[in-house]
Amino acid sequence: MADGAQPGSVGLVSTKTVRLFTTESPLMLELGGSLGPIDVAYETYGSLSPAADNAVFICHALTGDAHAAGFHERAKRPGWWDNLIGPGRPLDTNRFFVISANLIGGCQGSTGPSSTDPATGKAYGLHFPLLMMRDLVEVHRALVRHLGISRLVAALGGSLGGMQVLQWALDHPAEVANAIVVAASSRLTAQNIGFSAVARRAIMTDPNFADGAYAAGGVNPDTGLAIARMMAHITYLSEDALTEKFGRQPHPDRQHPGFGIDFAVESYLDHQGQVFLERFDALSYLYLTRVMDYFDPFAAPDALEAVTADPVKWLVLSFDTDWRFGTEHSRRIVRKLERAGQPVTFREIPSAWGHDSFLLPVEPYHATLRAYFDRALKEVRA
Amino acid sequence: MADGAQPGSVGLVSTKTVRLFTTESPLMLELGGSLGPIDVAYETYGSLSPAADNAVFICHALTGDAHAAGFHERAKRPGWWDNLIGPGRPLDTNRFFVISANLIGGCQGSTGPSSTDPATGKAYGLHFPLLMMRDLVEVHRALVRHLGISRLVAALGGSLGGMQVLQWALDHPAEVANAIVVAASSRLTAQNIGFSAVARRAIMTDPNFADGAYAAGGVNPDTGLAIARMMAHITYLSEDALTEKFGRQPHPDRQHPGFGIDFAVESYLDHQGQVFLERFDALSYLYLTRVMDYFDPFAAPDALEAVTADPVKWLVLSFDTDWRFGTEHSRRIVRKLERAGQPVTFREIPSAWGHDSFLLPVEPYHATLRAYFDRALKEVRA
Repeated sequence: MADGAQPGSVGLVSTKTVRLFTTESPLMLELGGSLGPIDVAYETYGSLSPAADNAVFICHALTGDAHAAGFHERAKRPGWWDNLIGPGRPLDTNRFFVISANLIGGCQGSTGPSSTDPATGKAYGLHFPLLMMRDLVEVHRALVRHLGISRLVAALGGSLGGMQVLQWALDHPAEVANAIVVAASSRLTAQNIGFSAVARRAIMTDPNFADGAYAAGGVNPDTGLAIARMMAHITYLSEDALTEKFGRQPHPDRQHPGFGIDFAVESYLDHQGQVFLERFDALSYLYLTRVMDYFDPFAAPDALEAVTADPVKWLVLSFDTDWRFGTEHSRRIVRKLERAGQPVTFREIPSAWGHDSFLLPVEPYHATLRAYFDRALKEVRA
Repeated sequence: MADGAQPGSVGLVSTKTVRLFTTESPLMLELGGSLGPIDVAYETYGSLSPAADNAVFICHALTGDAHAAGFHERAKRPGWWDNLIGPGRPLDTNRFFVISANLIGGCQGSTGPSSTDPATGKAYGLHFPLLMMRDLVEVHRALVRHLGISRLVAALGGSLGGMQVLQWALDHPAEVANAIVVAASSRLTAQNIGFSAVARRAIMTDPNFADGAYAAGGVNPDTGLAIARMMAHITYLSEDALTEKFGRQPHPDRQHPGFGIDFAVESYLDHQGQVFLERFDALSYLYLTRVMDYFDPFAAPDALEAVTADPVKWLVLSFDTDWRFGTEHSRRIVRKLERAGQPVTFREIPSAWGHDSFLLPVEPYHATLRAYFDRALKEVRA
């Protein structure tokens, strides 16, 4: 798994916030209605070239945030995609200008259901509008315009991030020279929706959920959110990875068999649930999983019109042990794009780690991205 | 899936109850301590031959009960394995005497954590002792003795039922001429344990759980138990089966996208959770999933001594789309048994339905069982 060529970190970074839509000039939403104001938290790494032709936009997954690389002041851990982004790393900040934004509906700086509704002075809660993938993309587009960029070398994302990339490139091919879609889906299966439905059930039946108005009471539906995360986490790893990491090892503190944390894997899942509570909001979990459930871009009759007229270069990657959005999901995206005459490179990457692989420095994965970015920059400058 | 040769039903049946252990003569438990009284609910189908040489014992899975075949008075639905058991059916009650018992720790007539503790006059709750697989088997053995049977033609079970069969035949090979282990495991993986851990978490964090003393309050941890069942149900079906049944169909009552039941698969899981509450107890869910977590019979150094001296005939079956206890689990059982010189027949049955296949009239599965039972009866009478 180690990546031999990982010299640099982008070093100290901080998150900026910008208001991209206002109450007077709101975002018009896919399902009707509007949303404003919209603030967006974002970070950038590297320098934008004078020609503004070296920008790469990172779309994060369900529980990600704007802090993809480098270190925040006094932080011990770097951003979530630090293994990928930095000077000399596969997405080389000596050459690329990388933009990473918290998506709307999220809870880490960008406007979401726990933000204050200016109409009431209280948190939106369930009065926040239901979002669709295009709404997330429209806000990214506004940020890109704000930064003075008219065309990205690439948009890149894994899982829900890849779904944003897919929607963006399908709708606005002139803005995205290369679309890199990793471990994503163009249409969730009934099983995918089922797991998210159970997670939402756990959150919404937590007595602290209070119909989504929990912020007013100063309590959070932590029990339900932890259950949601524990269950989801099982689906993010391959069965073999969980076996390799934990097998049937007893938890070191186990005294007598009972209903506590008897096995190491139980301790691990418990920990994953608990640390999640410190950084994520239950309402965002509801809204963003629903964005994924409803995502079905190729169902629109005109889905491929824009890219047919103005092709994008696509890189679609899956991981062979991913059972959340396995290779069949990626193959479907590839088939649809190829029928529309798109130049698509597809690779199924061998990796032991399941869906989570897209976050990890899996060697053939990083090598593929490194080579792809090198070529992409040469091509846009050719 | 249809089984062409399924003429008969065993007709009207009723559940009997027998006290097999008393306070004075309790069951000595695997982890130490004892349990008594123990009542067992059971049903029988067909007639015991004068030589008592035609008995087949059915071990049920996690949420099963004694009512495997035929109809209870005024019931619209037959027992849970009615497609298998009856006159002319693969387990032919014209020739076999079939015994089906609710296991201890359960909640459908046999003694379990919701039974009354004679020491307190209240439900045991979490004071019920933790059970191991051998405890379940010891009670089955006592029932078989009670019925005047010294040797079974076969013991048969799927999932947790197959695990009981495995333990029984390993420990007491003289009592089980044929051991039929379907869709079972000899050792849960970390993923298996993880799913059950999340299910238990949902139950135990339900405010109504009340540290297991909910019976006294007259309320049940229905919210948590339904979540546990919904999640488990996803794992009982193959991804393709869920896709075929539901795909991405909207729920007919869907008005606007939201956080209710928008997709057909959500309605299905919700229904599965709700009907489960009518027939199952949250404490039994805890106790019986823990029995499975700890089950690891081949880990004992002397695990194979008894069967090595006195071989059992084994039939081990898996289903190709089962991802709860997939074929690798069965192959492990087969490898261990073959190393001990056991005659093992193994088949991986093609079936679209995942783990649940063991309950369904999958044609090659039923054909295999029919042929096996025919041969087994001839052999014990040879």
